[in-house]
Amino acid sequence: MNASGANYAPEPVPDPVVGGGDFPFAAVRLDHGHIYGMAEGLQSAGGTLKWVYDPDPAKVEAFRAKFPDVRVARSEDEVFDDDEVLLVAGAAVTSERAGLGLRAIEAGKDYFTDKAPLTTLDQLAAARVATARTGRKYAVYYSERIHVEAAVLADQLVERGSIGRVLQVMGLGPHRLGTGRPDWFFEKEKYGGILCDIGSHNFEQMLHYAGAKDAQVTHSAIANYNHPDHPELDDFGEANIVMDNGAAGYCRVDWFTPDGLRTWGDGRTFILGTEGYIELRKYTNVATDEGPGHVFLVNGEGEHHLVAKGNVGYPYFGRLILDCLERTENAMTQEHAFKAAELSVQAQLAARVLTPDAEGAGIG
Amino acid sequence: MNASGANYAPEPVPDPVVGGGDFPFAAVRLDHGHIYGMAEGLQSAGGTLKWVYDPDPAKVEAFRAKFPDVRVARSEDEVFDDDEVLLVAGAAVTSERAGLGLRAIEAGKDYFTDKAPLTTLDQLAAARVATARTGRKYAVYYSERIHVEAAVLADQLVERGSIGRVLQVMGLGPHRLGTGRPDWFFEKEKYGGILCDIGSHNFEQMLHYAGAKDAQVTHSAIANYNHPDHPELDDFGEANIVMDNGAAGYCRVDWFTPDGLRTWGDGRTFILGTEGYIELRKYTNVATDEGPGHVFLVNGEGEHHLVAKGNVGYPYFGRLILDCLERTENAMTQEHAFKAAELSVQAQLAARVLTPDAEGAGIG
Repeated sequence: MNASGANYAPEPVPDPVVGGGDFPFAAVRLDHGHIYGMAEGLQSAGGTLKWVYDPDPAKVEAFRAKFPDVRVARSEDEVFDDDEVLLVAGAAVTSERAGLGLRAIEAGKDYFTDKAPLTTLDQLAAARVATARTGRKYAVYYSERIHVEAAVLADQLVERGSIGRVLQVMGLGPHRLGTGRPDWFFEKEKYGGILCDIGSHNFEQMLHYAGAKDAQVTHSAIANYNHPDHPELDDFGEANIVMDNGAAGYCRVDWFTPDGLRTWGDGRTFILGTEGYIELRKYTNVATDEGPGHVFLVNGEGEHHLVAKGNVGYPYFGRLILDCLERTENAMTQEHAFKAAELSVQAQLAARVLTPDAEGAGIG
Repeated sequence: MNASGANYAPEPVPDPVVGGGDFPFAAVRLDHGHIYGMAEGLQSAGGTLKWVYDPDPAKVEAFRAKFPDVRVARSEDEVFDDDEVLLVAGAAVTSERAGLGLRAIEAGKDYFTDKAPLTTLDQLAAARVATARTGRKYAVYYSERIHVEAAVLADQLVERGSIGRVLQVMGLGPHRLGTGRPDWFFEKEKYGGILCDIGSHNFEQMLHYAGAKDAQVTHSAIANYNHPDHPELDDFGEANIVMDNGAAGYCRVDWFTPDGLRTWGDGRTFILGTEGYIELRKYTNVATDEGPGHVFLVNGEGEHHLVAKGNVGYPYFGRLILDCLERTENAMTQEHAFKAAELSVQAQLAARVLTPDAEGAGIG
């Protein structure tokens, strides 16, 4: 039963918002592959990738293979000193993202970081101070909403009132650990813990779809259930929040995507409203050959299966560019980006440890 | 991608375990329609429905229309005084289920009640004492696992080790409120609250699939988000548990099934294991015409969509009959049935109230 009628038609795929050269940006620190999606997103919206910098020449070479027109900077400062550069995009080691952002902001640039944007409440406080003082942006690539067409379409549906008032947002974020991840990925001080890392996507989505500005973590838990060789890896995390408008949120994140799944994770989002619900099967409709991008909308009118593949696009990037040029906040407010990070860190800090035999684990 | 190979074949549909007259049982108190499923389940396993009793003649007549061979008792005692009756099945008002059970047990019968089996910790204590003293059974119709073929097939898969060690069990139990529910359904003292009522299914499933004997409620919340005309109705509930083997559990239950869904609820269960996961779409595969009974198994071997329609059956009922005849506990242990009830009541008692503007609601 597919959707019929214009009610469920997506808005047009966004066009580039600026022309060549109007929005030069740089990529600095390539520790996570998300930098590729970040640069592509900005390019697709009209941004011009001018510089790349990373201390590791191998990472730079790999990046240049994908973006051959980019200039290779010899230092961070060479990028910062270029007055043409309006925004610095970075995917540093998570614990170093705030430091990079503060330097970029001091250099007068807007900053666009991979999520999670920071790992400690001290970093958050410093980032809040710096953005408030300078007016510069510390934007975050919460890719699981802004760079996923199903998630963008869900946004449009919620905005149109298709499911009434949102009561709960629930996210499942399974990921495949695979092989070949760098050492920092397994050091908690560096990656920040699973609720800080993967969880940040989910806190952002809960606040966003519920239309909330604030929330309180009411429960959180982490575990290392099955990776004793990496004692600092949380391979499981969950958290509950209650938002300032009364809506609830729950997320489960983990590193247990089995080898037989044909993609990296069967990410889901369930949005429960007074008049209906939405389920996102973001990256696969499991055990079908239908690919990614599935939105299931059930409301008073019926059951609708919408496929958001190539017909929705990613309006975030154009809005971010215009926000930088016009000093607006249409892509995402600074406070929203920070609030999701704050909840992520708070959930991580408060988490009960479920690892069997861990200190304080098990039932009382 | 459907399953291939015998690994995922269900066990044979169970045959009746006894012949006509070997296991006479009675239906006493018909306040919830689940009594029909309970009686049919026992009949399908060979049980003989001998008596029905309810103080409301209209309920008795409706029941006789479905079970024309049943004898109508003039009182509860007429049933209890019949030495042939081995088991009393009942679906009383939830708060009255324990009282009926204690009377049945005192009369020397085994008892089989609709879930939730009780509403207070005092009732639970009395039921524990009575069953321990008499050796009689206080069995519970946790229908969302024992009377759902997808759930039974999941059980077989977990037992075969198809997903390794179970780490988390998660349940979504949306229900349609509809119209025409009796008054007691909206009185909290009688229905027990949503986590006690619908939630009991989920606590049972969490303990069962994880193979746990005990658990602790780590968080719970309820709300009346959108039914101000029924102030004692919880239309939303959620709870987290941690089990004695370290596995986690989460459930969300609600009364927000939208009118456009072609069945009463899009119930799901997600079972996360070290080597794979199972998703149950129990009552519908939303936005398809495929009907109920869907098991999605993803593990190291691939993505498998199994449909458990008519080829799995409900082994619980035959096991319960044999347990009664042979004084075994193969269908479900008494302690498991009680533990699920205990968690349900504890979660309800401890629940944070998320209703906006309710006393103590919102974020602190």
